[in-house]
Amino acid sequence: MNYEDLGYAKVDHHRAERTGVGEVIYGQSKTPEQITGIVSAMYGRGAENVLITRLDKDKFNELELPCGAAYNETARIAVVNPVPIERRGKIVIACAGTSDLPVSEEAAITAETLGSNVTRLYDIGVAGIHRLLSKLEELNDARCVIAVAGMEGALASVIGGLVSCPVIGVPTSIGYGASFNGLAALLAMLNSCASGVSVVNIDNGFGAGYQAHMINTVK
Amino acid sequence: MNYEDLGYAKVDHHRAERTGVGEVIYGQSKTPEQITGIVSAMYGRGAENVLITRLDKDKFNELELPCGAAYNETARIAVVNPVPIERRGKIVIACAGTSDLPVSEEAAITAETLGSNVTRLYDIGVAGIHRLLSKLEELNDARCVIAVAGMEGALASVIGGLVSCPVIGVPTSIGYGASFNGLAALLAMLNSCASGVSVVNIDNGFGAGYQAHMINTVK
Amino acid sequence: MNYEDLGYAKVDHHRAERTGVGEVIYGQSKTPEQITGIVSAMYGRGAENVLITRLDKDKFNELELPCGAAYNETARIAVVNPVPIERRGKIVIACAGTSDLPVSEEAAITAETLGSNVTRLYDIGVAGIHRLLSKLEELNDARCVIAVAGMEGALASVIGGLVSCPVIGVPTSIGYGASFNGLAALLAMLNSCASGVSVVNIDNGFGAGYQAHMINTVK
Amino acid sequence: MNYEDLGYAKVDHHRAERTGVGEVIYGQSKTPEQITGIVSAMYGRGAENVLITRLDKDKFNELELPCGAAYNETARIAVVNPVPIERRGKIVIACAGTSDLPVSEEAAITAETLGSNVTRLYDIGVAGIHRLLSKLEELNDARCVIAVAGMEGALASVIGGLVSCPVIGVPTSIGYGASFNGLAALLAMLNSCASGVSVVNIDNGFGAGYQAHMINTVK
Amino acid sequence: MNYEDLGYAKVDHHRAERTGVGEVIYGQSKTPEQITGIVSAMYGRGAENVLITRLDKDKFNELELPCGAAYNETARIAVVNPVPIERRGKIVIACAGTSDLPVSEEAAITAETLGSNVTRLYDIGVAGIHRLLSKLEELNDARCVIAVAGMEGALASVIGGLVSCPVIGVPTSIGYGASFNGLAALLAMLNSCASGVSVVNIDNGFGAGYQAHMINTVK
Amino acid sequence: MNYEDLGYAKVDHHRAERTGVGEVIYGQSKTPEQITGIVSAMYGRGAENVLITRLDKDKFNELELPCGAAYNETARIAVVNPVPIERRGKIVIACAGTSDLPVSEEAAITAETLGSNVTRLYDIGVAGIHRLLSKLEELNDARCVIAVAGMEGALASVIGGLVSCPVIGVPTSIGYGASFNGLAALLAMLNSCASGVSVVNIDNGFGAGYQAHMINTVK
Amino acid sequence: MNYEDLGYAKVDHHRAERTGVGEVIYGQSKTPEQITGIVSAMYGRGAENVLITRLDKDKFNELELPCGAAYNETARIAVVNPVPIERRGKIVIACAGTSDLPVSEEAAITAETLGSNVTRLYDIGVAGIHRLLSKLEELNDARCVIAVAGMEGALASVIGGLVSCPVIGVPTSIGYGASFNGLAALLAMLNSCASGVSVVNIDNGFGAGYQAHMINTVK
Amino acid sequence: MNYEDLGYAKVDHHRAERTGVGEVIYGQSKTPEQITGIVSAMYGRGAENVLITRLDKDKFNELELPCGAAYNETARIAVVNPVPIERRGKIVIACAGTSDLPVSEEAAITAETLGSNVTRLYDIGVAGIHRLLSKLEELNDARCVIAVAGMEGALASVIGGLVSCPVIGVPTSIGYGASFNGLAALLAMLNSCASGVSVVNIDNGFGAGYQAHMINTVK
Repeated sequence: MNYEDLGYAKVDHHRAERTGVGEVIYGQSKTPEQITGIVSAMYGRGAENVLITRLDKDKFNELELPCGAAYNETARIAVVNPVPIERRGKIVIACAGTSDLPVSEEAAITAETLGSNVTRLYDIGVAGIHRLLSKLEELNDARCVIAVAGMEGALASVIGGLVSCPVIGVPTSIGYGASFNGLAALLAMLNSCASGVSVVNIDNGFGAGYQAHMINTVK
Repeated sequence: MNYEDLGYAKVDHHRAERTGVGEVIYGQSKTPEQITGIVSAMYGRGAENVLITRLDKDKFNELELPCGAAYNETARIAVVNPVPIERRGKIVIACAGTSDLPVSEEAAITAETLGSNVTRLYDIGVAGIHRLLSKLEELNDARCVIAVAGMEGALASVIGGLVSCPVIGVPTSIGYGASFNGLAALLAMLNSCASGVSVVNIDNGFGAGYQAHMINTVK
Repeated sequence: MNYEDLGYAKVDHHRAERTGVGEVIYGQSKTPEQITGIVSAMYGRGAENVLITRLDKDKFNELELPCGAAYNETARIAVVNPVPIERRGKIVIACAGTSDLPVSEEAAITAETLGSNVTRLYDIGVAGIHRLLSKLEELNDARCVIAVAGMEGALASVIGGLVSCPVIGVPTSIGYGASFNGLAALLAMLNSCASGVSVVNIDNGFGAGYQAHMINTVK
Repeated sequence: MNYEDLGYAKVDHHRAERTGVGEVIYGQSKTPEQITGIVSAMYGRGAENVLITRLDKDKFNELELPCGAAYNETARIAVVNPVPIERRGKIVIACAGTSDLPVSEEAAITAETLGSNVTRLYDIGVAGIHRLLSKLEELNDARCVIAVAGMEGALASVIGGLVSCPVIGVPTSIGYGASFNGLAALLAMLNSCASGVSVVNIDNGFGAGYQAHMINTVK
Repeated sequence: MNYEDLGYAKVDHHRAERTGVGEVIYGQSKTPEQITGIVSAMYGRGAENVLITRLDKDKFNELELPCGAAYNETARIAVVNPVPIERRGKIVIACAGTSDLPVSEEAAITAETLGSNVTRLYDIGVAGIHRLLSKLEELNDARCVIAVAGMEGALASVIGGLVSCPVIGVPTSIGYGASFNGLAALLAMLNSCASGVSVVNIDNGFGAGYQAHMINTVK
Repeated sequence: MNYEDLGYAKVDHHRAERTGVGEVIYGQSKTPEQITGIVSAMYGRGAENVLITRLDKDKFNELELPCGAAYNETARIAVVNPVPIERRGKIVIACAGTSDLPVSEEAAITAETLGSNVTRLYDIGVAGIHRLLSKLEELNDARCVIAVAGMEGALASVIGGLVSCPVIGVPTSIGYGASFNGLAALLAMLNSCASGVSVVNIDNGFGAGYQAHMINTVK
Repeated sequence: MNYEDLGYAKVDHHRAERTGVGEVIYGQSKTPEQITGIVSAMYGRGAENVLITRLDKDKFNELELPCGAAYNETARIAVVNPVPIERRGKIVIACAGTSDLPVSEEAAITAETLGSNVTRLYDIGVAGIHRLLSKLEELNDARCVIAVAGMEGALASVIGGLVSCPVIGVPTSIGYGASFNGLAALLAMLNSCASGVSVVNIDNGFGAGYQAHMINTVK
Repeated sequence: MNYEDLGYAKVDHHRAERTGVGEVIYGQSKTPEQITGIVSAMYGRGAENVLITRLDKDKFNELELPCGAAYNETARIAVVNPVPIERRGKIVIACAGTSDLPVSEEAAITAETLGSNVTRLYDIGVAGIHRLLSKLEELNDARCVIAVAGMEGALASVIGGLVSCPVIGVPTSIGYGASFNGLAALLAMLNSCASGVSVVNIDNGFGAGYQAHMINTVK
């Protein structure tokens, strides 16, 4: 059987073979005991660089891991049984403002852990567009760009009009009032007037980093 | 009494004195008879350059006006009893795409009829931002800029970051799917990361032209 | 100057150089005259395989094109000045039901016109999942998969869990009641439990085909 | 009179006769004193296996019950004056992920307390569909299936396409961003492309368990 | 292979075996040619009583069927190759007002075609609750009740509190203003204070009739 | 039995006794045949002044009534078997603009038919508040005021702060863009900062006229 | 001048004369200092029975009142400088469940303080409709009924169909999931199929009690 | 280079030259360390009167500023390196209720810091319109009016109908239930029946003060 039944979880050992990447643990609504159990089952099969996302520092400290782990507090990600991996290609992660760093870093750590090179271009939102325009060379050198922005989310469209590689927009919940926790940025990115922009869920840095890695390493 | 009672309407002859501009007729949900009646009452008091907005060509043709009128089909505006008026200052009306012309022209005709000079910069959306950047001189010469855009509405933010005068954003209903008839652009403009941007209702070219004129001629 | 000013439009001749693909004309809210003007300007510069999307058959017939054009009624796309182009790689376009064909074909024609090979797997929705499972080989052979579905949009998640290449979800407006014109499918795809799925606007077959081509041909 | 008036509550002693099941106490917005009062009135009439749902552990500890009670922390359910009851038929409760356990257990405890046999199939979401497919025999042996899922809620549709008994979908609030606290899963399940799926409120494990028991024991 | 590939459709001949009911054709977004093709493929395999739902009279008349068909205009349903079938059990279909008849009949024809006995109780909404109360005997004799209502959708809750069998609520789009095309009734039914009520999509008479038949005939 | 069963309708002959007013026929989603049938049943029992609301002129002309009827085209109301009735008390119906006349007249005809005196104050919206202030005496003389307004719906609040009788707000669908078909006015009226304002559904002139009559004639 | 300017507040001493009821203080977003200041200004003018609504117990204890006050914790209302007042007429306040008590009591205390007699009928929701039907005499004896309900809010419609006096619906935020904090009940009440029902804001017991008093004492 | 790269931020030293006002720091989602770093970079270039908005008192106290700062707790604004500046023109800031003070003061401090004279007219909401009407002279003397209001937000429309200068509406989140955190006021202001009203985001006192200053000082 290609999965392991823990009762509260069925660990999908088959996933790496099927999708190229092993199971990633979504930490947010799981108890420390559940996460510990799943990680242990994976480690028992020899899994390396296991990602746990949306993991608060407190919950990370409650885990009883069977092996070492690297924890990034900004990105709220733990990498369990971390081993060096050769990185390929180039992904650019651009964000509009300082407040978008947590989501941007979630994307960056994800892509790096999976094996992609990442260039960070932070705080280059459209309110001061000369900052973005000064980075055209970096942007055009990428195989995929992730555009992270809250509020009106215009960054994705502007970058989409400037580059020849795929752009993945990540709306963030940064803002207030009629941002409706990221809905404004999400709708804006979905309606981008620039071609070649696709979008992931609000604050889903992980999903963007994951797909960007897939694009970066497309066979 | 400072208004005239037609039963179905109370014509506000006092408005010009109070707000500087006479009553403007919102044509959309009124019958041709009602519009004719209101215009006639105003004309009877000597009103000039009476604006009728959101007036389809067919309905315009059904009006029995007591005087001449200039009708603009793109803007869907009639100016009744048109008389030349000296234009002052400078308003720039920028729009993102060709599809935004009707709303842009509604703003332009309104502002011009009220007495402002208008410069039109059409189809300079952010998907090809060099078009916008080539117009910086025009933009910086204005006393007020109106930014008209549908889809993701990013134009307002980008212009807001580039100029030192007030920017009025007009979201349009151009788009489909998750544009939700202009909601996406509206939310985007309300959440502009650039300071100094205010917003009017979706497709409200009239309101933007009206307020821009007020700003342009602020005493 | 790298664009041409027609008044109602500023044709972006620079786009091909910047993004790898020339300007695409969004036909929906433009008049036949405007489209004719833009196409003529582009053709005057030697543009080939110019895409006009969301173009009803009636409006297509009203165009006065300076050259030949191929029109696809299901996809509502015209390709102006069509010339053969070598196709590379492989994109799979899967859709859930027969009703999703127009959006699927919009994606397919777009990607083929830009130069990608396309395999169509239509009507393989999850209500009869054996149909999908019988196509695993085809799916795993792709460099990018486009999953087109209305109603509950589950197809994107199921495919996302089965393949190792990027998946682009296209929610469609097929459905009624609480599908809210595609909102249900859009939200479902944005919340996919499978990693590696990004999403474009409701019914945006063009956007999906465009980005899939970019991924398929990433340098 | 077939109810008892406590001022703040009118205890419906007639319900068991009318609907086959006695009054169930919704614990969430009631004070411990109110719950105690209602339970005591019911116990005074000899009620057995009284369910109190959405009861936090702290509030449970504050109750002053007139008799014994079994409390399940995951399901947040207390069963007051618990007595053994013969269980009949078979309900399968399937959930997509480990995070869906609280809602699933609420359904399971409810159905078991009312007198149904329950089989639990947890963490078999569509991102690894082989897990679900390995359980086809269990699923096809049920008289009713409850499908519990958050995020995109695709589980209900996939199961609906595989079984010949009624499926009740329970969307959960698991997710973030555009899941809008379970709205995405709710809409998805309401738009299921599979026939024979009905839906209850977000996180309403109780309601699903209750109706599944009714179906399982339909006379 | 257990399905037949028509290109635009993959006819699921395996469904009857898997779910107990053969493929049902959703007529709304399909062309007459597509429907004709699918029906012909099914008829070629000997299918009887094939349901085509959401089929306008005009479209029905355009079909080129290989066999006879019974068309019900109120329900907008065609039954192709109709053969008599023994009906079992009892389903009650109650609706709140005369305007709910089309949805109610869609449910009724569906359930009857699949093989259930149906009792119709129409126009018994809660604004005159004595009408409903006069039908208690009929209601309590059913194995499943379908409650069809628009506007505030209260019928489902009131019936849910009176019967001991499962109740399926069908919100309809009858109403105006803040009914938001059935959303008000949908939300009301999802939040029913009565236990044992589940809900299908707005105007989804078919889905309710289908599941009610499953409940009525649960093995 | 206190109702009459027509199959498609159960005519509630008991309503007048119960609520003081006989059954009112909501004409919108009923066929002419159904309306004719219901009216005939009521007329057969001697009903007078039977209201049919939301009745288009065309549908009115298709009715085959057993007696005379008065039809008001603006209000889209027919009064069947009209007989004079003594009117009591005083209701003021105020509306913000000329476009609100149809809804205002629906309220006025309803209240007058039921037996209340009505004073109409039309087109006194807050954009020219001197018009409203000139009518204070009329307003303060009423036993109930109905405030009808679209767009931002401010009229209800302003009147609510000026009078000592109950105010019923009727939001109308007049407006465009972010009025969302009357939602803006509805929310505004629900959040009125003035005490003593209650609200009915968007465009529900009938409901307002009905309740105002109840208040005007409270025993 | 008929108001008193405290800088942060302009106390409206004219209101009692204008509307029949003195200023009521909305306590929720004001500081204790602000409330103290406003109350003191009113008391200085001799105001009696001053209502402060939405006042938490803690904030009440921080007030430095110039006179006595009666505080009701369930209703979160303080009555400052309470003096006996003769009560007239009869208002019935009915609520669906025990959880609706706080809102119901807010309505009751408001109406009683203003001078109306109030009869409380609590926990008579439609899931056990015999409880409601047993109170018909009480309901029919009222001059106005307030119907308080969360979840699906059906109580307002059912009562509206049974009585001949005005019904004010108060939706409450009791519920979870798709109740969306009271939106479901609000929409249901706005779409009531019973005539003569108007609605106030979610949880607005005060507004309902205020208007009910106005109706009860209409001159 | 016209900006300074701090890694987590790119400080836009060019903004003052471009827009007339230096960079303003949005304090809400930034860490004290990030704010300290940005302020220090700006101060190092000689910036004066640097605004930090949405800065809680606690976070303000954690800053390690290189210079003095004035902190306003109501407005939640710090002005770093404050220096006297000559104020010009006149802006009126009007608000509807005492609860709107924080947003009003955010607007006032912003405009004053940028160099505008501000007149405050607080608590003049439409429920007691005589308070507003007593201030007509003040209002008509302004070059721009900011209208701040929550709940139904009617203040903007009423003022818009009375003055001849531009009005900027600021909806606030004051209210509950169907105010939906300010959405009701936002929609109301966007749909103002008075011409010349534009709107900023919910609670965006800063944006209104900023644009009002731009209008007040338009060259």
